[in-house]
Amino acid sequence: MTAIVFSLGQLAERLGATLRGAADTSITGLATLHEAGPAHLSFLANPQYRKFLADCKAGAVLLTAADAEGYAGAALIVANPYLAYAELSHLFDRKPRAAAGVHATAIVAADAVVDASASVGAYAVIESGAQIGAGVTIGAQCFVGARTVVGEGGWLAPRVTLYHDVHIGKRVVIQSGAVIGGEGFGFANEKGVWQKIAQIGGVTLGDDVEVGSNTTIDRGALADTIIGNGVKLDNQIMIAHNVQVGDHTAMAACVGISGSTKIGKHCMLAGGVGLVGHIEICDGVFVTGMTMVTRSITEPGSYSSGTAMQPAAEWRKSAARFRTLDDMARRLQQLEKRLAAVTPADDASSDA
Amino acid sequence: MTAIVFSLGQLAERLGATLRGAADTSITGLATLHEAGPAHLSFLANPQYRKFLADCKAGAVLLTAADAEGYAGAALIVANPYLAYAELSHLFDRKPRAAAGVHATAIVAADAVVDASASVGAYAVIESGAQIGAGVTIGAQCFVGARTVVGEGGWLAPRVTLYHDVHIGKRVVIQSGAVIGGEGFGFANEKGVWQKIAQIGGVTLGDDVEVGSNTTIDRGALADTIIGNGVKLDNQIMIAHNVQVGDHTAMAACVGISGSTKIGKHCMLAGGVGLVGHIEICDGVFVTGMTMVTRSITEPGSYSSGTAMQPAAEWRKSAARFRTLDDMARRLQQLEKRLAAVTPADDASSDA
Amino acid sequence: MTAIVFSLGQLAERLGATLRGAADTSITGLATLHEAGPAHLSFLANPQYRKFLADCKAGAVLLTAADAEGYAGAALIVANPYLAYAELSHLFDRKPRAAAGVHATAIVAADAVVDASASVGAYAVIESGAQIGAGVTIGAQCFVGARTVVGEGGWLAPRVTLYHDVHIGKRVVIQSGAVIGGEGFGFANEKGVWQKIAQIGGVTLGDDVEVGSNTTIDRGALADTIIGNGVKLDNQIMIAHNVQVGDHTAMAACVGISGSTKIGKHCMLAGGVGLVGHIEICDGVFVTGMTMVTRSITEPGSYSSGTAMQPAAEWRKSAARFRTLDDMARRLQQLEKRLAAVTPADDASSDA
Repeated sequence: MTAIVFSLGQLAERLGATLRGAADTSITGLATLHEAGPAHLSFLANPQYRKFLADCKAGAVLLTAADAEGYAGAALIVANPYLAYAELSHLFDRKPRAAAGVHATAIVAADAVVDASASVGAYAVIESGAQIGAGVTIGAQCFVGARTVVGEGGWLAPRVTLYHDVHIGKRVVIQSGAVIGGEGFGFANEKGVWQKIAQIGGVTLGDDVEVGSNTTIDRGALADTIIGNGVKLDNQIMIAHNVQVGDHTAMAACVGISGSTKIGKHCMLAGGVGLVGHIEICDGVFVTGMTMVTRSITEPGSYSSGTAMQPAAEWRKSAARFRTLDDMARRLQQLEKRLAAVTPADDASSDA
Repeated sequence: MTAIVFSLGQLAERLGATLRGAADTSITGLATLHEAGPAHLSFLANPQYRKFLADCKAGAVLLTAADAEGYAGAALIVANPYLAYAELSHLFDRKPRAAAGVHATAIVAADAVVDASASVGAYAVIESGAQIGAGVTIGAQCFVGARTVVGEGGWLAPRVTLYHDVHIGKRVVIQSGAVIGGEGFGFANEKGVWQKIAQIGGVTLGDDVEVGSNTTIDRGALADTIIGNGVKLDNQIMIAHNVQVGDHTAMAACVGISGSTKIGKHCMLAGGVGLVGHIEICDGVFVTGMTMVTRSITEPGSYSSGTAMQPAAEWRKSAARFRTLDDMARRLQQLEKRLAAVTPADDASSDA
Repeated sequence: MTAIVFSLGQLAERLGATLRGAADTSITGLATLHEAGPAHLSFLANPQYRKFLADCKAGAVLLTAADAEGYAGAALIVANPYLAYAELSHLFDRKPRAAAGVHATAIVAADAVVDASASVGAYAVIESGAQIGAGVTIGAQCFVGARTVVGEGGWLAPRVTLYHDVHIGKRVVIQSGAVIGGEGFGFANEKGVWQKIAQIGGVTLGDDVEVGSNTTIDRGALADTIIGNGVKLDNQIMIAHNVQVGDHTAMAACVGISGSTKIGKHCMLAGGVGLVGHIEICDGVFVTGMTMVTRSITEPGSYSSGTAMQPAAEWRKSAARFRTLDDMARRLQQLEKRLAAVTPADDASSDA
């Protein structure tokens, strides 16, 4: 594979950064402050890592003007080093770029429309009425169902499944194993036996959405399941039928969202969070890891549930007591009453 | 795509419903009470939504006789509107129906048996000794292992994996990405190193089972893993080796069941529930979302664990105190003893 | 399918076991003590199951010398029956063995290297610069990305995705649906909009690793995500970018590990455990099921979080009180102070 090489001058120009050091220094990759070598560009984004600057061996470091003052080595001085790193990262990405065209083994229905600038990989199957936009990459072994639309600039890793009637916006990235448009969990109970309800809605994804590996987004029961613009979904997330996710909300891995729940814009759900169905989460909510969300949230802010880890022997005692908490609370109340009967009340003043 | 159209009269006839309104009204789809337009049929199943009836613009509504009294518009009067909706939903399902026959690119072993009425999709692979029953659909890119049997009327979405020696009953539906028969997690520890135990059992699924997207059901270590008739499994469920699930039990997404655990009939496990291995859950148990089940359940009823969500700042205080619960309980006991020494006992009478 | 038959004598010889009984007894399979018939070999590993010995109908039982004394039937006497069972289990495994060679429909890039003794299944795709070692099986419909290396003796089930630049050690087993090398969840927030950070690291798996069905291991953001030798990962595990897992650590299903977290050697994580990012777990740690690990662990031992299951009605009371725990703790403290004012202090002596 050909090496990726940029000069420090080229990178400075790309970012509009102030260059301190030799413009012709060759940079072949990016690395953290303590792992970087002389051909690496590094960056300081988290103040906690400032301590690594002193011994940093990087060819250059992305720094704010303030941090650059305390560093003697070569630097690219920018307003936001983390964003600058994000931008440059794409230059050093060795992810293969697919050539335009339909692979000889791909099966494309006669009435499907594939833009000439799109790429369709080996053994992909594209069904009747599907539309693949300009510059889209459909990876090998992908399945694109009937009437499904993939907007321009999209990138599907190998082995992604899109069922029928799924509408994907522009520049959407979907990792391998993701399933979009599967039949949601809809059953009516008839004397103890579950009768299937056909899931006749679709799925709509906005622009600039990212869907992680093995994440599943079910189609709607009646109307569509809707994922807003700029939403980022990590791996193994489960989104049930008729969920709505607002623009620019991000979810870490293993989040599960039950049917018809509506999540606002600019929310963040940490890993393993679970939400029951039919609730609403307002804009700007942050939910910490593994929290069980059983009711709507109407105020922005951070929310949590669960208990903190303990050594197992201690935890067993806490857990046993948790089961008696109501009894403890009643006894506490009882004690307060009894004590009040023997002593003058002073609770309002004695405890800070 | 051709539109789907039924007259209200046709739908009434199909259900054996009492029709109130014009029999020739065209119905092109189903919708909720507040989203329905004049070409939609809607339904009232949840009494909470009765308030939406007044402003409902649906062409007709599936109603009980009692609810129909309070509604002036067109209606199909039935005993159970939700079941009626479930039945009609299939008429409006635009899921493509596969034509019978084996796709030219499917690879079917010479000694595999595929019924003439079955459909095998593009790039599917069917191995030696497998049997595909009448009317079965094997989606594109599916893999059906050696000696595996898919009973009549089954429907496999694209990209389902069935390993070898898996027995699937009749009318089973399996969504994309599901893996049935993978090797369970069996290892013997020899001086700190894990030695693999071959998983020589299979998997048996009963009739009318549904398996969600990316759900995994491992093969048995010795005997089969067994899923009963009418069991419904949502997405991303994990069922370990030698689990047994009783008839008509339903599990929502992200449930995980450890090895050799046995679950009764007509149980419901909500999303994210986890069960340890080697326990038994009796018939008729409901487990609420994200509950950790660490022991057998011998009485029908509802079970829960975890803590309720709080604003994070408050939660941190609760969580910190949880770790000291045993100490709190001891101190409470101590106080009771000390107080008993100074006051006459009256706890039995003073608190309601 | 040809039956698998070994004589008891052959099995004894293979294990170096002491044979008690007829060497020519035919053994066609393995089974548990209470399910075994006369053609089965069984084993007693867990002392709890000793009670099943009396009525055991197995053709022979793998026993320690001590247990054999209390059993009258045929036996193979070994030092460790469970390890002996693990070893023999592979003889009775009906998993199809792939023949060496590249299937006619597999697409192998011109500059990829596939060892002559390796097997590449139908519709597999192997990209530029990939290397497939001696004796490796690449299942049907697998995808092996550019420059990815699969070490000798590896076994990939059908439908596994390896992205580009993934390095897999020797004798690694990967179940269906697993995705290794997907793009990790890396985004920089710019005024509320998430900007993607290219994930330019790879993934390195050591020797003798096992990866379960639908498990996902993301590629590193800069350096590689690293899985040590002998690590066993069950199904539906999520390992984020730049996680490091030490040798011989085992994780049960549905574990989720956030980015850059480092786990020691010989650890065990039970099902559903979640770890936040950027923490370190030392060697020899056991974490019980569904525990939320929010800080580093520096001492070997067992750790837990969560609460124990209760009937839902009781749980609701406990959960309601949990939210007031801090208040309860303060009131308890208050009572202690007030009581101390009316009685002589005796807390140090009155409670054991």
